[in-house]
Amino acid sequence: VTITVAVDAMGGDRGPGVTVPATLAALELEPELNVLLVGRRDDIQLHLGQTAPDLRDRLRVHHADEVVEMHEHPAHALRNKKDSSMRVAINLVKEGEADACVSAGNTGALMATARFVLKTLPGIERPAIVGALPAMRGHTHMLDLGANVDSTAHMLVQFAIMGSILVKYVEGVERPTVGLLNIGVEDIKGNETIKSAGEMLKRGQLNYVGFVEADAIYLGDVDLIVCDGFDGNVAIKASEGLAQMIRHLLREEFTRNWARRLGGLAAMPALNGMRSRIDHRRYNGATLVGLNKTVIKSHGGADAFGFRHAIHTAVKEVNLGVPEHIRGELAGLEAA
Amino acid sequence: VTITVAVDAMGGDRGPGVTVPATLAALELEPELNVLLVGRRDDIQLHLGQTAPDLRDRLRVHHADEVVEMHEHPAHALRNKKDSSMRVAINLVKEGEADACVSAGNTGALMATARFVLKTLPGIERPAIVGALPAMRGHTHMLDLGANVDSTAHMLVQFAIMGSILVKYVEGVERPTVGLLNIGVEDIKGNETIKSAGEMLKRGQLNYVGFVEADAIYLGDVDLIVCDGFDGNVAIKASEGLAQMIRHLLREEFTRNWARRLGGLAAMPALNGMRSRIDHRRYNGATLVGLNKTVIKSHGGADAFGFRHAIHTAVKEVNLGVPEHIRGELAGLEAA
Repeated sequence: VTITVAVDAMGGDRGPGVTVPATLAALELEPELNVLLVGRRDDIQLHLGQTAPDLRDRLRVHHADEVVEMHEHPAHALRNKKDSSMRVAINLVKEGEADACVSAGNTGALMATARFVLKTLPGIERPAIVGALPAMRGHTHMLDLGANVDSTAHMLVQFAIMGSILVKYVEGVERPTVGLLNIGVEDIKGNETIKSAGEMLKRGQLNYVGFVEADAIYLGDVDLIVCDGFDGNVAIKASEGLAQMIRHLLREEFTRNWARRLGGLAAMPALNGMRSRIDHRRYNGATLVGLNKTVIKSHGGADAFGFRHAIHTAVKEVNLGVPEHIRGELAGLEAA
Repeated sequence: VTITVAVDAMGGDRGPGVTVPATLAALELEPELNVLLVGRRDDIQLHLGQTAPDLRDRLRVHHADEVVEMHEHPAHALRNKKDSSMRVAINLVKEGEADACVSAGNTGALMATARFVLKTLPGIERPAIVGALPAMRGHTHMLDLGANVDSTAHMLVQFAIMGSILVKYVEGVERPTVGLLNIGVEDIKGNETIKSAGEMLKRGQLNYVGFVEADAIYLGDVDLIVCDGFDGNVAIKASEGLAQMIRHLLREEFTRNWARRLGGLAAMPALNGMRSRIDHRRYNGATLVGLNKTVIKSHGGADAFGFRHAIHTAVKEVNLGVPEHIRGELAGLEAA
């Protein structure tokens, strides 16, 4: 079985400079993969260089003239960029030319375009972005990571259902534990939206364990954490900032003098071991869940290693049939 | 000049086991400090042991029979625990027996009781909790850290004003830079509350720099970050979880085998240097801002070193006259 992924080659901070090498690496690692590289032909060719013929056979460049800018208003992109690499890549999924789309472009535009072109699953109010994060034990999935602000209690419950089904297949956990992000674990904590979502989840069918605080992300207390997109984004960005500060301080402390430098050399294997275990690039590639097809969002600043991982996530979810399972289980819930 | 601090000796996860040794350490370090230790006399005496006479002179035990539980409903504590160590400590500030109160107890109960007893500054809708966090360059103050959920735009603007005045005196920065926490820096990002608060701050007198994302906390981009208490709590708790995971993974990686252990020994000075620079205990002690007097909230899990720092924060803010400055500058703003 082959799987075809449409890659938005122009998306992300560095465009084809990252997406093309990442695609070649992915083709090398995943023999069942075919890729449609969507974007400006000349820019893409420049980075294709002397691709080995066996990879070249599983790769096609699909020209698209326009580019959605990283800070462009989503509605503007949707209305005016009908020949953008992002839009054309999503169209290819819609037309059945590709099984999934991967983009490191403007998140809002990607979500708006994917919703418009691929449509939301029946009964789903709003798609959400779900991603995995490293935890002390295993890892934690979390949604929404920034697609929706001011989510209603009903939306949070739908996020919990969709996320729970995704985790079930991606992680192979029959009944993933689900926590609702709050600022305390007692029933009286939080705002009315959270309390009401908590009540609905208690009465529902999921393996709901109650409120969790944001440290649960990294402690690995639950398989899935559900939250509004504002809070999800705050948690992720605060973590990125802290990790960056720690890297910066370690560099400073390990270069203070020669003794420190030697200590740093001696500690290198352990530090590298730690770094690789929480390497955010290995977690790159979040899923736009609630759509009829698989769309994966890469971090805009991802390097080729990270973007390759986002392509891998697309292949995995297509293989597992994640959107089909969500659609099927939602229909079952509706019927019940 | 002497400064008297009322310490809620029973608050926090370990009560007098932490608050009493912390008080003794604070008395030793700060010659102008007097302390009223409020709580169950017998429990406190048990931990006072053989206190040196010169410290004993600046210390008085003030008996209070009841204790506010860590998970007690704030309204319940306010109504039923009139002889709690927390309530009595705050009463002592109200009556002028003490200049400030420090508690590691139930945050909601502390805020509710402090508001009820000490009253909010004229014109202030809701007090907030402001704390400092380590940053790549210097440190960052942030509010609200969890006292208020569903803050209105007007409340966020008041937080910005109060926080800005506090940072001005505590840090000695004439016009602290102020950022509003959002999920992107563009004007179109966030919900209506944030956008409207952003508009008001743009038209106001503060040194407002616009929206910031949560990584700005640790990058040290701005002096003060303003946010709703839900988001502030999420940012802090996510950071706590990540820091805990990193400590855990470092321990694992540095104990895998003998070579790793030796590497760990060689790296110890640098690792300790880093640890001490971001030691959360050195940042323990958040201020309940917007009240007529100084009330400091310690982390419930703080050890004696951390709690001592919370007492130090109280002394510093009384010395600087922070609540009086906030009251004065607010009156000036009203008049203008």
